[in-house]
Amino acid sequence: MSSGACVDRVKFRLQRRAAMRQIWLSLLSGLSLRLVFLCGAEEGLEFPNFDGKDRVLDVNERNFKKALKRYDLLCLFYHEPVPATKGLQKQFQMTELVLELTAQVLENKDIGFGMVDAQKDAKVAKKLGLEEVGSLYVFKDDRVIEFDGELSADTLVEFLLDVLEDPVEIISNAMELRAFERMEEDIRLIGYFRGEDSHFKAFQEASERFQPYIKFFATFDKSVAKHLSLKMNEVNFYEPFMEEPAILPGRPLSEMDIVEYVNQHRRATLRKLRAENMFEIWEDDMDGIHIVAFAEEEDPDGYEFLEILKDVARDNTNNPELSIVWIDPDDFPLLTTYWEKTFNLDLFRPQIGVVNVTDADSVWLDMSNDEDLPTAEELEDWIEDVLSGRINTEDDDKSVDEQEDDLYMVENGDESPDQDEEEDYDD
Amino acid sequence: MSSGACVDRVKFRLQRRAAMRQIWLSLLSGLSLRLVFLCGAEEGLEFPNFDGKDRVLDVNERNFKKALKRYDLLCLFYHEPVPATKGLQKQFQMTELVLELTAQVLENKDIGFGMVDAQKDAKVAKKLGLEEVGSLYVFKDDRVIEFDGELSADTLVEFLLDVLEDPVEIISNAMELRAFERMEEDIRLIGYFRGEDSHFKAFQEASERFQPYIKFFATFDKSVAKHLSLKMNEVNFYEPFMEEPAILPGRPLSEMDIVEYVNQHRRATLRKLRAENMFEIWEDDMDGIHIVAFAEEEDPDGYEFLEILKDVARDNTNNPELSIVWIDPDDFPLLTTYWEKTFNLDLFRPQIGVVNVTDADSVWLDMSNDEDLPTAEELEDWIEDVLSGRINTEDDDKSVDEQEDDLYMVENGDESPDQDEEEDYDD
Repeated sequence: MSSGACVDRVKFRLQRRAAMRQIWLSLLSGLSLRLVFLCGAEEGLEFPNFDGKDRVLDVNERNFKKALKRYDLLCLFYHEPVPATKGLQKQFQMTELVLELTAQVLENKDIGFGMVDAQKDAKVAKKLGLEEVGSLYVFKDDRVIEFDGELSADTLVEFLLDVLEDPVEIISNAMELRAFERMEEDIRLIGYFRGEDSHFKAFQEASERFQPYIKFFATFDKSVAKHLSLKMNEVNFYEPFMEEPAILPGRPLSEMDIVEYVNQHRRATLRKLRAENMFEIWEDDMDGIHIVAFAEEEDPDGYEFLEILKDVARDNTNNPELSIVWIDPDDFPLLTTYWEKTFNLDLFRPQIGVVNVTDADSVWLDMSNDEDLPTAEELEDWIEDVLSGRINTEDDDKSVDEQEDDLYMVENGDESPDQDEEEDYDD
Repeated sequence: MSSGACVDRVKFRLQRRAAMRQIWLSLLSGLSLRLVFLCGAEEGLEFPNFDGKDRVLDVNERNFKKALKRYDLLCLFYHEPVPATKGLQKQFQMTELVLELTAQVLENKDIGFGMVDAQKDAKVAKKLGLEEVGSLYVFKDDRVIEFDGELSADTLVEFLLDVLEDPVEIISNAMELRAFERMEEDIRLIGYFRGEDSHFKAFQEASERFQPYIKFFATFDKSVAKHLSLKMNEVNFYEPFMEEPAILPGRPLSEMDIVEYVNQHRRATLRKLRAENMFEIWEDDMDGIHIVAFAEEEDPDGYEFLEILKDVARDNTNNPELSIVWIDPDDFPLLTTYWEKTFNLDLFRPQIGVVNVTDADSVWLDMSNDEDLPTAEELEDWIEDVLSGRINTEDDDKSVDEQEDDLYMVENGDESPDQDEEEDYDD
């Protein structure tokens, strides 16, 4: 069994990721939890509560091959042995319930669900190539897709429905073309081919390696191709928020040509954090830091700031050292106050800063002047200072914990500390 | 204490609503559930798990007045006596945990949380005007706001942050004006006033009655007013998806003028279902039915269908009998398969139909031809047939339950049943 691109990734942070995911599990995925006593409610807007039927398999050496054959998708949660302490047991039960609820909701979709115990089922795990305890692996045909998002029932249901679809979407009319052009937040590839039996095959094979994280489109239609300035057998790569695509070098392209190109270019200059792949993005830091921009798209200044960010990203799209993670606080209501506290920020306003992912120490661009957002040029200067190391999280103001211990600082919390006077107490 | 507009509403479905809400509770709001054993995870993307500290008050006759005075907002969950059965107790604990987690996340925002027992605290409930068991009431200054959405921590956090803000947003520059113009999904009022000490006061008082469900904006800026063609002391009402606003009759307007106008016009011709007020919308049916349109905005045909719907809504904005509930399935991943099953639909495609909210019986417009969406004219003809009763849920195919009992029907599930052969087994 060949393992997909998502499984091939770096492994050195596996334990930390597993720990981080547990937190999400416990919090977001508690859902369902039980057999509700239903009375006659207004109909048409009722939640499917967990019916108590056991749908998640206890996968072992005897049944795993059969399970792989039986379903279109097999979704396996690879977990540590069931813990002895009550608290951790409850957490484990909740993970199970998220899977049970997901299985119930998707009952008619031919998706199998199972649990693989890292100790009891170590042999099965090895055979299946499961590596990261606390991860969810989806088997589709001869591929393995690692789920790298928030382990809640909603996010998982959406993810699995995406995986069920064809990995390449065919664009055959103007309506579909317009929809393609609206997807500016996604990485998209599009190719023009003679038909299903053509170099399309290689494109399709490549697409399977990235489904559902990177979207692949194809057209067999001359007028669609013309509108996109696509030549026969040409493949274009659209980076998020870029107006013009890049053309993959060479025609026709082999599966590996495409896979290698995508792997080299998938870290976008500006990328949006989403529940479905939040951990993947957060772990893909640049030497231990992230440039993070908070901007609420619905807010006036958030929207304009995002426009400026897009300009900056477009100007710097060829700089491989630059990747900005855009977080819309509206997408993560429960994390907003955590971020405000951790980073000592007001997220009602747009913000941009550098975050050290090892200790969450951070430094933020001063945009306290109410009226003026920075211009694209000012932002680029700041980013240059970040990339050159002139601005870094070590030189900046004290960490939040230290500030909390420091009454004098807390009382002046609204003012940014004087750079000349500060000391780095970590040293 | 004057009770706000949201509390003044119809009460005859209270029990049913409470039952319905319980289901949501049990499913969506299980969140948190426990004290997690944290190890060193990658920092900056961690969920605030419930810390076990008790923040939710047990409200009673002795402490309720103090609680009202102490906080900017007081958020009270009015509940049935703690049940004796284990299953229901668990459910109750989960509601408590949703509130505890919300309280923790919003700890620095000066919001109090409490539980009011419908039996033990009947007197307090009466004094506070709590009526609907299973509801959440938010007290702000001398107002009461009923929360009518999904009782999950994310939705509740967002809602409370909205309630904390000023009920009127002031628009003073072009950036804010552009943001105002982008909000086509919301009901919005905007007024032009000389300044804070002016007829603005009445506008502000009116806004408080509808916060946060209906958005109020004001400008004191001549050029903003000019751009919106607003005269001094004039108030405009923007219905969702309409290009032109309606002008409220009369200048200057009293608080009651505005309140009455909004109450008369708040049921929009096309309204989007959202987690924050889904129950309010669903209960506001038209003689027991809803016209429901499913359309995924991100999908090619969903997007175009929505454009057609908007055209139809614009053409029929003055028809008080027409209100279409638009549901984007992407916003409700866990409900999608429930709807598909209940209504016997494929929600990968746009759909429009009539739903009887008493029994969830429904009839849907046949759009099975892959290429062609209905035109605005065809849609209007269909809607006319619905409003005149020529198309109704009683004449149409059998209910889903009946179909499930009927093997012959199940085997022909994909075809729409012949209208002439059907019988209504309910009679």
